[in-house]
Amino acid sequence: MSADRIARQMTFLVEADRLKTILRRTPLTDNSRQENSAEHSWHLALAAMVLAEWAPRGVNVGRVIELVVVHDLVEIDAGDTFAYDVAAHHDKHERECAAADRIFGLLPAAQAAHVRALWDEFEAQLTAESCYANALDRLQALLQNMQAGGGSWTEHGVTRSQVYTRMAPVEAALPELWPFICDIVERYCASGAILQD
Amino acid sequence: MSADRIARQMTFLVEADRLKTILRRTPLTDNSRQENSAEHSWHLALAAMVLAEWAPRGVNVGRVIELVVVHDLVEIDAGDTFAYDVAAHHDKHERECAAADRIFGLLPAAQAAHVRALWDEFEAQLTAESCYANALDRLQALLQNMQAGGGSWTEHGVTRSQVYTRMAPVEAALPELWPFICDIVERYCASGAILQD
Repeated sequence: MSADRIARQMTFLVEADRLKTILRRTPLTDNSRQENSAEHSWHLALAAMVLAEWAPRGVNVGRVIELVVVHDLVEIDAGDTFAYDVAAHHDKHERECAAADRIFGLLPAAQAAHVRALWDEFEAQLTAESCYANALDRLQALLQNMQAGGGSWTEHGVTRSQVYTRMAPVEAALPELWPFICDIVERYCASGAILQD
Repeated sequence: MSADRIARQMTFLVEADRLKTILRRTPLTDNSRQENSAEHSWHLALAAMVLAEWAPRGVNVGRVIELVVVHDLVEIDAGDTFAYDVAAHHDKHERECAAADRIFGLLPAAQAAHVRALWDEFEAQLTAESCYANALDRLQALLQNMQAGGGSWTEHGVTRSQVYTRMAPVEAALPELWPFICDIVERYCASGAILQD
């Protein structure tokens, strides 16, 4: 019984390794290559710790970290869907639900249900924890693009209003950080890295 | 005051991105490239969640995840020190302490002290949380080498007794998992991927 549980957990952990091969559109800050979804998830966990004082009151930071650690696992099957690709978002949820069934299903049943509940919570953006986690996801991509001199903004011709729409969860969950975000967006609009609408 | 705190935290988070460029000796499970320390840290956070039921009684899994998220940040300056490289371990602690001073010192002072305390706790292996975190660090490297068909064992001529010494924290903190570990080590000795002493 224990041996079977351990074997299933190890199979899941080995399968999870594949998240390191899923590339996002955002670059590393040194612009040397695209970021992958595993190291991105780590960066969000670190950000959840470091920015906790600005999070909505009463947020359980431990659960936020769990949300961000599991939030991209479905990309192992479903791939990373570019934030500004409207067409690809049409079937995103369907593709990701199938992935969740297969990947979380490698775990013992109760544990699979627990990880699925974390992923559902992240996606729904209804709890304070999920709102904070999603805000970090948006903020981190902005830091990467900023530091790389434009990143996926420049490469894909993203506009000012698109960036502000994408950053709205940061304004909602982390209002003290909003002036910092606006300053970056305006500077990169002025430089031409973000297009005027 | 807030703006200064936020600026320091953002500088730290941008600097932390460099951990994605620090390569370990262990490969990805598909053997396509070496693993980096940021994605490795993410994998440990996931393992801390998934294997929590086998951890020492009363362990605070939330703090374990914080320990593994920050445990390799010093490598941004100090580099990854190969587990089986005895010579490089002589000045490892000195190199890493200097790195901790600079990197954690980017944060506001109280926060820097908090992250330093987490890193010190991970290194000292005195608390149940740290023992569990270190066991995960050893176990994950074994899974990577196993799945890649030998990985850093084969490449660097690692012997059976060296692997067992390296895995001792797993036996101590996760005794239910020990038969699983021994089975892997013996199979990879039999195949020649791990050398007989």
